[in-house]
Amino acid sequence: MTPERARKLDEVINKRQNGLTVVMENVHDPHNIYAVMRTCDAVGIQDIYVLNTELPKDGYFGIKSSSSANKWLTIHSFNNVKDCFAELRTKYQSIYTTYLGESSKSVYDINFTNSIALVFGNEHKGVSKEARDLADGNFIIPQVGMIPSLNISVACAVAIYEAFRQRKVAGLYDQNAQPHPAAAEIKSLWASFSAS
Amino acid sequence: MTPERARKLDEVINKRQNGLTVVMENVHDPHNIYAVMRTCDAVGIQDIYVLNTELPKDGYFGIKSSSSANKWLTIHSFNNVKDCFAELRTKYQSIYTTYLGESSKSVYDINFTNSIALVFGNEHKGVSKEARDLADGNFIIPQVGMIPSLNISVACAVAIYEAFRQRKVAGLYDQNAQPHPAAAEIKSLWASFSAS
Repeated sequence: MTPERARKLDEVINKRQNGLTVVMENVHDPHNIYAVMRTCDAVGIQDIYVLNTELPKDGYFGIKSSSSANKWLTIHSFNNVKDCFAELRTKYQSIYTTYLGESSKSVYDINFTNSIALVFGNEHKGVSKEARDLADGNFIIPQVGMIPSLNISVACAVAIYEAFRQRKVAGLYDQNAQPHPAAAEIKSLWASFSAS
Repeated sequence: MTPERARKLDEVINKRQNGLTVVMENVHDPHNIYAVMRTCDAVGIQDIYVLNTELPKDGYFGIKSSSSANKWLTIHSFNNVKDCFAELRTKYQSIYTTYLGESSKSVYDINFTNSIALVFGNEHKGVSKEARDLADGNFIIPQVGMIPSLNISVACAVAIYEAFRQRKVAGLYDQNAQPHPAAAEIKSLWASFSAS
């Protein structure tokens, strides 16, 4: 590994946001999953949760281990809401679901500088009632157009970049502001990959 | 048309942002084009510019007239940069290109409450040199991850939702803050569509 490469890995791991995560509940479209993972990497989210409580028609479970976004993230897989939320509760102070289309808190009224997990739901059905009942609240991306909803990868990008904006102002992207407990293991895993 | 439908059309047209537009230069992937248009509608962008200076390999020019996002927007098509920018200059105070990957102004340092056109480039090559040379500046979406770029529909969503956030605070979404010169024609066109 070149010294520049080692510096790059350090720089990225030191900006990872230990208090921010995304949960995808029954998101089945591989393009959406890949786009969400790519944006998570871009804003410094290390841990994501893939919650699949139902088997998609084509039997495909969403994450291909060969995907290039996948390898930079730590993916936690669950097949039931209760266990997933129990683990989230041990790591994050609050859990918000996006229930697109329902009137609720605007994404711009969420304080993203606190430790928070954001749950995004299935492309057609949204977040399940079980997940909404177990969460602390619900937020929407405000919309003023004719078409009633946004693509999930767009909604997720808008939300986590608003988190980025707030956290940047709060200094949470200063080097190692939120050290990841597994930083050393993650770095040695990354170092084993060939260049990006 | 029901009275609710008429009210909905009024509400949407009165929130359209006459001082904000998106230009897609040689964007060829129909999924990207559709996602960008859908997000434009969501933040109240009425006018978009489709600039194609090269014929895609499959001969497909990007906009299907049957697309459901398309019908709520006013699409201006150009096949050369100079003419496109000449028209933009008559309508917008400034033109910024996104040249992803190059160090330049952060999207969060742009004042989106001014009248502005945002140019997004081809998925592989980015914005052309000709367009960059004719623009007032260049901005990027900040990224702190391992993967060096964002999908164009995600980059566009992050930029225009930051515009939404700033403009909302500035009162530009108050009813009819930026009346569209063709509001009456647009409303009667919309009224001719079946409910969606």
